[in-house]
Amino acid sequence: MAEQAIYFEDYELGHVRVTSGRTITETDFVVHAGHTGDFFPHHMDAEFAKTTPFGQRVAHGTMIFSIGVGLTASLINPVAFSYGYDRLRFVRPVFIGDTIRTRVTISAKEDDPKRTGSGRVVERCEVLNQRDEVVLAADHILIAERRASGA
Amino acid sequence: MAEQAIYFEDYELGHVRVTSGRTITETDFVVHAGHTGDFFPHHMDAEFAKTTPFGQRVAHGTMIFSIGVGLTASLINPVAFSYGYDRLRFVRPVFIGDTIRTRVTISAKEDDPKRTGSGRVVERCEVLNQRDEVVLAADHILIAERRASGA
Amino acid sequence: MAEQAIYFEDYELGHVRVTSGRTITETDFVVHAGHTGDFFPHHMDAEFAKTTPFGQRVAHGTMIFSIGVGLTASLINPVAFSYGYDRLRFVRPVFIGDTIRTRVTISAKEDDPKRTGSGRVVERCEVLNQRDEVVLAADHILIAERRASGA
Amino acid sequence: MAEQAIYFEDYELGHVRVTSGRTITETDFVVHAGHTGDFFPHHMDAEFAKTTPFGQRVAHGTMIFSIGVGLTASLINPVAFSYGYDRLRFVRPVFIGDTIRTRVTISAKEDDPKRTGSGRVVERCEVLNQRDEVVLAADHILIAERRASGA
Amino acid sequence: MAEQAIYFEDYELGHVRVTSGRTITETDFVVHAGHTGDFFPHHMDAEFAKTTPFGQRVAHGTMIFSIGVGLTASLINPVAFSYGYDRLRFVRPVFIGDTIRTRVTISAKEDDPKRTGSGRVVERCEVLNQRDEVVLAADHILIAERRASGA
Amino acid sequence: MAEQAIYFEDYELGHVRVTSGRTITETDFVVHAGHTGDFFPHHMDAEFAKTTPFGQRVAHGTMIFSIGVGLTASLINPVAFSYGYDRLRFVRPVFIGDTIRTRVTISAKEDDPKRTGSGRVVERCEVLNQRDEVVLAADHILIAERRASGA
Repeated sequence: MAEQAIYFEDYELGHVRVTSGRTITETDFVVHAGHTGDFFPHHMDAEFAKTTPFGQRVAHGTMIFSIGVGLTASLINPVAFSYGYDRLRFVRPVFIGDTIRTRVTISAKEDDPKRTGSGRVVERCEVLNQRDEVVLAADHILIAERRASGA
Repeated sequence: MAEQAIYFEDYELGHVRVTSGRTITETDFVVHAGHTGDFFPHHMDAEFAKTTPFGQRVAHGTMIFSIGVGLTASLINPVAFSYGYDRLRFVRPVFIGDTIRTRVTISAKEDDPKRTGSGRVVERCEVLNQRDEVVLAADHILIAERRASGA
Repeated sequence: MAEQAIYFEDYELGHVRVTSGRTITETDFVVHAGHTGDFFPHHMDAEFAKTTPFGQRVAHGTMIFSIGVGLTASLINPVAFSYGYDRLRFVRPVFIGDTIRTRVTISAKEDDPKRTGSGRVVERCEVLNQRDEVVLAADHILIAERRASGA
Repeated sequence: MAEQAIYFEDYELGHVRVTSGRTITETDFVVHAGHTGDFFPHHMDAEFAKTTPFGQRVAHGTMIFSIGVGLTASLINPVAFSYGYDRLRFVRPVFIGDTIRTRVTISAKEDDPKRTGSGRVVERCEVLNQRDEVVLAADHILIAERRASGA
Repeated sequence: MAEQAIYFEDYELGHVRVTSGRTITETDFVVHAGHTGDFFPHHMDAEFAKTTPFGQRVAHGTMIFSIGVGLTASLINPVAFSYGYDRLRFVRPVFIGDTIRTRVTISAKEDDPKRTGSGRVVERCEVLNQRDEVVLAADHILIAERRASGA
Repeated sequence: MAEQAIYFEDYELGHVRVTSGRTITETDFVVHAGHTGDFFPHHMDAEFAKTTPFGQRVAHGTMIFSIGVGLTASLINPVAFSYGYDRLRFVRPVFIGDTIRTRVTISAKEDDPKRTGSGRVVERCEVLNQRDEVVLAADHILIAERRASGA
């Protein structure tokens, strides 16, 4: 895992990157249920799922969020930290066998009201499936140091 | 797991429930890293973590969110579904050995602009540690059918 | 997880409840083998399994027991504890993709020879598959406090 | 894993074997909870556990049974199968860090009422901790072919 | 697990044993990726894999090595230890659903230049698939005490 | 995960890189045992381990190899593939709580006898612990296309 200091000034509005992909397997469903304790039949009971509009088990929203975010974790930025997420939405179901990847767009840069030496960078995170459909979206708020702050 | 139909009208503003607790173990750190692919040294490298202000490994934010939400998954409501989360914030670090539980407060009820037969219920979710400190907060948006909708 | 005190007197002979369901996946086979160290080819070797009368891998008996019991773990009763199980029987094989749920019937209530303040409640546990066939059965012995015991 | 045909006649009443040992870790608690869905605070909440008579988390009974049985799974006997268990008892608590092994004693041999070509062998299984205390006991019923049956 | 002292003199050149088999599942792919942090799309992205010459996901080489070696771990030899491996080669891809077993041949016996009381035994390890094709090979170097060394 | 074509000519003899670190936890021991089926008491039985010269459980060699290699998996090189490893040696024991990272040195470049369009690159992989001691070493053989090969 590489480390690289990226300052507030370095983030370029509109910049887009797309992660590598990962197939969501039945194993991931079982691991996530066991990890979180959420064994709702929508995720875990194939017979019940046949009776729902989707006709099959659907992935936990928290799993697609966690894996979708995990796919972006390839570069350590020692001058930034994660503040939280806004507008996290579960847009479409994800089924066993779907392959997801995450598109990250720098969608906003703002002053940080509490930290003059830093700024807020909003990363629009969209998790896509193999048909390029958005299945989950969220705005990641990153607090990044200003280059000037070290002056 | 019990199932119970809870309609929009049934949600009571200000109602509070607190889940049972769960100790976050080193195992959970390892499972979450392996599940998401996020092996950042802040979570996984005890030697590196000694050099940070926290002095020890900190839990992934997505893990505390996923487990915190999972703790609430005890009752299936067939007339509601999860729309998403607003204002997800990582308020305090969670360390190995901390014990979390989730406090859910019905904080708002609103018309759903797109679905006249349903309404939006906002569940304020606060994940607490063993010192009753909030470590993570988020507003869960639930779309619940109106009782009248079935009339 | 809800907590509710249920005393010996509260258990009603003949009362039946059925849990929600869970599909037994290949993942569960692999997890259980790894958890217990039992890698017998009947469970783990698809080629070998083709040569057996079942023609496919069969689930570990201890897994169906553990998951079947786990499905019933939805309510904490602080005035009872688990003493053990009698007549645990592996009635039918469970295959990858089968969906199980557990039917619990209060089948007997007896004095506890060693504890006058408590009584024994026998829960007949039957694990059913998606065709309502019993695949595993066992009599769970619960020691529950008598309401009078607190008088 | 070795395979060896052991017929009903070959089992020697009173024969004892003891398996190798295995330390029960916090990881095993987390894996078993996730595998079975049983997240009862007695097993998973260290703060709650401090308030109980044991003062710490106790292992799931089904876990000690599953691992205790798993420890015996070292030799495949193609002429026998597992019928079930009688008198499964949770004798003492198992804590994180305890080391268990299983002692198997051939305690009875009986005709099988339904299968003239086979007999029933009872293996008394006792799971011991590092102080040689029995923590769990059960009578394993094995149906083994009679050597004569192939004549 | 049985224990048996096998001295340098006891290893017989040309002796061959074959382990029991194990089917490599999609679960194993997910577990190994999560265990090692190697989420390369060749192993984890079914859509990407369709575009490669193999047309499907291929197992991690380190997984087939680890499981292939693990299959041989059935007997503890207290008078030998593992020194390392030579000529580890990834000969053929392993796909989801393949069943492997390991063939171990005593291929060489040599003096140990540093330990007069011990000798080197080379175990030729070949991991085979269900078509008896070698998928991985390696020479395991074992340092075994000489029987005379205890004289 | 980034992708970058690195041709045979691009590998620079003597170039060194060091990965980020990872603490080897008791969880990793349990996961690896369960993944491979190797439950030898040296890895899994803390009581037994107290009686050995190391006085504690030691990590599986295949685990340190798999994780050590996994730490290097940060960049996909589409014009190279892994041929195998030579001289894999288990140099020092790894204990629970040790933190490892991998140092990769380009130690040799050779013609490939079978592929004129490619060459062999040897990556000397040394897994280090938190005291900078080598715990495992191996020579990774990479087959990389020559830039000229596409001409």
